[in-house]
Amino acid sequence: MTFDSILDLARQGSRKKVSVAAAQDSYVLEAVSQAYTRGIADAVLVGSRDKIVDMAAQNGISLDGLEILDEPDDAQAALRAVQLVHDGQADMLMKGHMDTRSFLRTVLDKNVGLRTDRMLSHVCVFEIPGYDHLLFLSDVAFVPYPTLEEKQHLIENAVSVAHACGVDLPKVAVLAAIETVNPKMSCTVEAAELARRYDEGLISGCIVDGPLSFDLATVPEAAAHKNATGRKIVGDADVLIFPDIQAGNITYKCMSHMVNHRSGCILTGTLAPTILTSRSDDMETKVNSIALAAVVASK
Amino acid sequence: MTFDSILDLARQGSRKKVSVAAAQDSYVLEAVSQAYTRGIADAVLVGSRDKIVDMAAQNGISLDGLEILDEPDDAQAALRAVQLVHDGQADMLMKGHMDTRSFLRTVLDKNVGLRTDRMLSHVCVFEIPGYDHLLFLSDVAFVPYPTLEEKQHLIENAVSVAHACGVDLPKVAVLAAIETVNPKMSCTVEAAELARRYDEGLISGCIVDGPLSFDLATVPEAAAHKNATGRKIVGDADVLIFPDIQAGNITYKCMSHMVNHRSGCILTGTLAPTILTSRSDDMETKVNSIALAAVVASK
Repeated sequence: MTFDSILDLARQGSRKKVSVAAAQDSYVLEAVSQAYTRGIADAVLVGSRDKIVDMAAQNGISLDGLEILDEPDDAQAALRAVQLVHDGQADMLMKGHMDTRSFLRTVLDKNVGLRTDRMLSHVCVFEIPGYDHLLFLSDVAFVPYPTLEEKQHLIENAVSVAHACGVDLPKVAVLAAIETVNPKMSCTVEAAELARRYDEGLISGCIVDGPLSFDLATVPEAAAHKNATGRKIVGDADVLIFPDIQAGNITYKCMSHMVNHRSGCILTGTLAPTILTSRSDDMETKVNSIALAAVVASK
Repeated sequence: MTFDSILDLARQGSRKKVSVAAAQDSYVLEAVSQAYTRGIADAVLVGSRDKIVDMAAQNGISLDGLEILDEPDDAQAALRAVQLVHDGQADMLMKGHMDTRSFLRTVLDKNVGLRTDRMLSHVCVFEIPGYDHLLFLSDVAFVPYPTLEEKQHLIENAVSVAHACGVDLPKVAVLAAIETVNPKMSCTVEAAELARRYDEGLISGCIVDGPLSFDLATVPEAAAHKNATGRKIVGDADVLIFPDIQAGNITYKCMSHMVNHRSGCILTGTLAPTILTSRSDDMETKVNSIALAAVVASK
């Protein structure tokens, strides 16, 4: 399965609309413009109309077909962008030219925000040539040290993203350094408990196994070498749940910079999928993230 | 710098000898035989002579030039293999056909073992095409949750391996998910404290910076994007120190299986470098590990 299937899903069905908070950012404008041109999503650009128009002209970005909602003040622009999603006038939210902290404060605003009873978490989707499955990683950016209960929420959020992307019964690997339970490593105990909850039917819509080392989760030959009989996952994981943000982020950055790949990321657990791309992401990754959000919004 | 420079160093100078504990393992025999043939190291095979000779014959492995010390009992073979190193009759130790736990117990034996006042730690060396430096990773296999003091020992051990490999002033990146100190993430506080100890001259023979995200440590373009002025490391790290074994092992396995590379690993902090290869390592990695041990033993 490849990222093209996500792009295809985004292009099918009813067109979704992304609301961009403080849209006067040339990278974000270009991504949104490309997503529009490629039939992936409509957009409403909330921010300073003058700056948006100037920036697009300077960078040769077409604004044809994109709505602009003029709001020169960044904080107000963020609030209005979020409210459009909250009120159902847009289907997903995207961060523009503002710092992440202020953006997230608005996302969580009690009146117009996108808070739900689900936990917020970040899901990254990777296509890696040679690996048969799309890989859904969580959490590499948002939840620092998830508790056992929070890990179950990470699984649920990642699984719902996988479902939206057409992976009907994702295999969820709860990762650790080792594949056996060691009481001195709490993440292995928690991984086994999550696998037990799956066995008891308390986690559904997926298959959960853990603790698993990275190679047992993603490398069929390593799983064969390790004689991993009786395991539910033998190098064929769809979802990777990390012990904490340190392991998640370092692995994610390693995959992003050292492994040939295509990827996209969203924040989930919100009323609507939310996109926070980083400047260092390339344009394709930004467009992929919009497509991923659109697919999740369609579900 | 490439792994060839390590192989060259091993071939230069006086030939070092590896003592193999319970050598009746076809993969280990082949690696040792190749290392001998390629001029990297001599070897003494401690174990069941019958099994060693049979296994070599069955697998077409040449034992020409390799000593055999007949000891059919595995535990005794391990003790004698370690003692050869302890007594200076061999320069490095290698695990053969025995489980890691028993092997390590012998390595740490109070009478004949290789214990020193330094902490034992594991160092992996990666050559990654496109990255200008050899990367020295620690700890991905041995030290589960290093304390601040233990992290300083990880640095010292990895730096001494880097020195032996000809990296005179290695840049040590203490990794985390983020590049700023966050009191809620103890690894960022510890990373900053290690950097401070370097600034005060308490850690020498290297340059220490932290906390650093993986991309700031290893991707010059990302460092430029993030405007990392005033940092000592901007995408040009030699040594990567991980927050804990979960982050270390998962990243290491990701690099081992998803990134094009050449690598080798040793256990250090012992009286002599010690090699524990895994069956799933390919032959080149096993030979590289012997070469790495020989280079460290020469220092």
